[in-house]
Amino acid sequence: MTTALDTLKSNAREIHNIAMAAQLLQWDQETYMPNGGAAARAEQVATLSKIAHEKATAPESDALISAAASEAPDLSTDDGALVRVARRNYDRIKKIPVELATEMQKAASLGQHAWIKARKDNDYESFKPFLAQNFEFKRQEAEALGYEDSIYDPLLDEFEAGMTAADVNTMFGSIKDDLIDLVAEISKKAAMSSDEILRRDYAEAGQAHYSHWVCEKIGYDFNRGRIDKVAHPFCINFSINDVRITTRYMNNWLPSALFGTMHEAGHGMYEQGSAQSLEGLPIAGGASLGVHESQSRLWENLVGRNRSFWDFAYPELQRTFPDALGNVDVDAYYRAINKVTPSLIRVEADEVTYNLHILIRFEMEQLLLNGDITVDEAPKVWNDKYEKYLGITPPTDADGIMQDVHWSAGLIGYFPTYSIGNLLSVQILEKAVGDIGDVNPMFAAGNFNPLLSWLQDNIYVHGSKFMPKDLMHSVLDGPMDARPYMAYLKQKFGALYDL
Amino acid sequence: MTTALDTLKSNAREIHNIAMAAQLLQWDQETYMPNGGAAARAEQVATLSKIAHEKATAPESDALISAAASEAPDLSTDDGALVRVARRNYDRIKKIPVELATEMQKAASLGQHAWIKARKDNDYESFKPFLAQNFEFKRQEAEALGYEDSIYDPLLDEFEAGMTAADVNTMFGSIKDDLIDLVAEISKKAAMSSDEILRRDYAEAGQAHYSHWVCEKIGYDFNRGRIDKVAHPFCINFSINDVRITTRYMNNWLPSALFGTMHEAGHGMYEQGSAQSLEGLPIAGGASLGVHESQSRLWENLVGRNRSFWDFAYPELQRTFPDALGNVDVDAYYRAINKVTPSLIRVEADEVTYNLHILIRFEMEQLLLNGDITVDEAPKVWNDKYEKYLGITPPTDADGIMQDVHWSAGLIGYFPTYSIGNLLSVQILEKAVGDIGDVNPMFAAGNFNPLLSWLQDNIYVHGSKFMPKDLMHSVLDGPMDARPYMAYLKQKFGALYDL
Repeated sequence: MTTALDTLKSNAREIHNIAMAAQLLQWDQETYMPNGGAAARAEQVATLSKIAHEKATAPESDALISAAASEAPDLSTDDGALVRVARRNYDRIKKIPVELATEMQKAASLGQHAWIKARKDNDYESFKPFLAQNFEFKRQEAEALGYEDSIYDPLLDEFEAGMTAADVNTMFGSIKDDLIDLVAEISKKAAMSSDEILRRDYAEAGQAHYSHWVCEKIGYDFNRGRIDKVAHPFCINFSINDVRITTRYMNNWLPSALFGTMHEAGHGMYEQGSAQSLEGLPIAGGASLGVHESQSRLWENLVGRNRSFWDFAYPELQRTFPDALGNVDVDAYYRAINKVTPSLIRVEADEVTYNLHILIRFEMEQLLLNGDITVDEAPKVWNDKYEKYLGITPPTDADGIMQDVHWSAGLIGYFPTYSIGNLLSVQILEKAVGDIGDVNPMFAAGNFNPLLSWLQDNIYVHGSKFMPKDLMHSVLDGPMDARPYMAYLKQKFGALYDL
Repeated sequence: MTTALDTLKSNAREIHNIAMAAQLLQWDQETYMPNGGAAARAEQVATLSKIAHEKATAPESDALISAAASEAPDLSTDDGALVRVARRNYDRIKKIPVELATEMQKAASLGQHAWIKARKDNDYESFKPFLAQNFEFKRQEAEALGYEDSIYDPLLDEFEAGMTAADVNTMFGSIKDDLIDLVAEISKKAAMSSDEILRRDYAEAGQAHYSHWVCEKIGYDFNRGRIDKVAHPFCINFSINDVRITTRYMNNWLPSALFGTMHEAGHGMYEQGSAQSLEGLPIAGGASLGVHESQSRLWENLVGRNRSFWDFAYPELQRTFPDALGNVDVDAYYRAINKVTPSLIRVEADEVTYNLHILIRFEMEQLLLNGDITVDEAPKVWNDKYEKYLGITPPTDADGIMQDVHWSAGLIGYFPTYSIGNLLSVQILEKAVGDIGDVNPMFAAGNFNPLLSWLQDNIYVHGSKFMPKDLMHSVLDGPMDARPYMAYLKQKFGALYDL
């Protein structure tokens, strides 16, 4: 006999398959699609989005989920978690009109394509209508979803369930002053570091080789993944067993591809790590964007910018780039990759200034959503904030308001999850070290398995079975806390800059 | 007011978008998908296929098509053609059970993946169950569709509307003896030609450059297309404006990529040439596989293996491969690329022997479908036929029964369309020459626009608005005829071999 749970699972798998096909349309659009394909691609994405939406909001779903809930009352089981997620998704999606969902998806696809060209041409005017359209649609979505305090809340909730704009303001409030003080202290000693060695000639082929090598060493599974080139890197999956990362190579800036691929590999290993029993279900994959980002930042920064790691990884880097690094010792290299300097580009930012980039985006999103500023004013407001927080002004909109793909693709309310991830990464690593011991000797020996296994067993395997804050509370034995993160920054950069 | 025709068009566009997404899943599977993704990919393809099938066979479609037919009675208009095609597709698809359609699609996806591995490992045993499954499903499909004469007919009809196994047997009957005689005559003069110069060292990068160069010169639009590497080349489209070709590079066999890409570019230019008004509708794209193949073979053989063409194209080839071709004159090169020799691999076959490869596949398909032989016996039967028709025996199943992707992907009844294309290509070119004059001086000057424009205006622009035989009858001012093809072969190879 077919139970309600069986039917719910079967429906969920079908919707998942449609979503995965839509993700491939997106991956292809970013990687290999010829320009001519853009208009038809937007129609294709819109069609799949519409069908998935129709299936997810079918009239019988409400009763079906309720019936399945009575069959699987234990939320700690896979089945119980599936019902919980189905209920949350259903209640959320049901509030958004089909036409709006379809149009948003289409606008996101067209916007992304317009952004690629506009950014290349530094032509904000051509991008502006797409940006305005995406914000307008998101306002409509937020109104449809409803909110108590801020129009920002229902948008943030999509990416970080249960978190509000007020929470994010509190979070930034608790680290903002410390961060600004730390940046100021370090700035006095700017002369102590240089990243000139990272700006030498790094041929793409060598970067591609090393990116592949390092991702494989830390544990990203290439039998279930691959690396491709894009304008703005991301990680995307079409299955637990097909999780792809993307990167970009800059000839005279080694960190872009190097830390970019370690970052995306962190996302990728999290996705590859879901229990196989979750395959094809909406409880596979990361618990939230914030938890996801904790893993990308952990592998990028807490491993990739760790001194011990380079005892292991530096010789291969020197072998790959003998002309650029043959005569550079590992300590000079370590100082270069940890140089702190206010810069324009978020994804290239150091660990200390990074969260100020996020703060600017978070504030811009609130201003645009609330209608406090228009898209015409936005580039100047963006530039003013960079001047105020980081002391620098973007010379072009391409390096200013157009630097990120997110808004072009309708991802609004997404940025705060990056800072949440930063804070969590330090707390999680400290917890892991408590269990498996000092990771530095392991990193120095190229042995990442104890850490990966710990993350796998404690976080990855659970997919998105649990609410993010419940999962984190269980892993950390307590709530999210910004203090370990600030302590980490002060210790690491205090030592580097003799503070 | 929304008319029945409006609704029919809207539905058709939706089904088209789903089909295009499914094609991207397939393209990705062949080009870039990591191994781990295979199982989930099969599920994704099956889901999209099921949804497209459900939409195409929705209960209201029958009445809707009839209502639209009364609104657009003129079959020469786009709307009238759309209704005609919708009726044909509906009547056909309605006869195939949903479960069978879904399972066939899934088996095709899994079969293709198994084929890639089995062919690499020369392991027919691992491929056999997939082959048996595909033939079994096709038998079920043919029974569901119904037929009067041969179980083969309803399968062939999918690819070449209105043609039967009896027609194909007649077609092969009319050229088989002449072909065998011609091969025998040429074989006596085998010493007159050698393809050694084509087996020299041709680096992949050079082949990729030249393939791109030559496709661009003949008129394939890279702003609406691209070339990628695969195990078995094909052309696929996701829009009139996103038509991709694929190829493979063999270091010591230049013709594979060179003529392979010209072949696929021929398909690609046909797809790119549909009127933009047909975009998103099932009347865009080629009229049938046979007509499609007439274009790939025209560009591959009647242009690419034409002596005048190389007056234009040979200098660039010499510049690309100075070590291999620097001292080879264009006439020696022309003789090499037109060497006639019985060989094992269909896609590498010369113009004279090619149709014997097709005849073998056509006969194998009938034997397997009729149950006259089993998949256990198939490799030996295949090899015996190669010995009988071409005088050679495949040393491995990889170069024997497993050499083509088609059966692994459930494409049964497809092969005869290759020979239909060969015959048509000569008739079409002769007709074009009647209108635009001798093409040889144009080819020698690198001027392909008169020919491409003629094909564009007379064939490509119409998409699949007309039944293939009606379109061809109109273009040729008469029926398909094998005699011009045989005359072409006798004249060209008679001159080359002093017959």
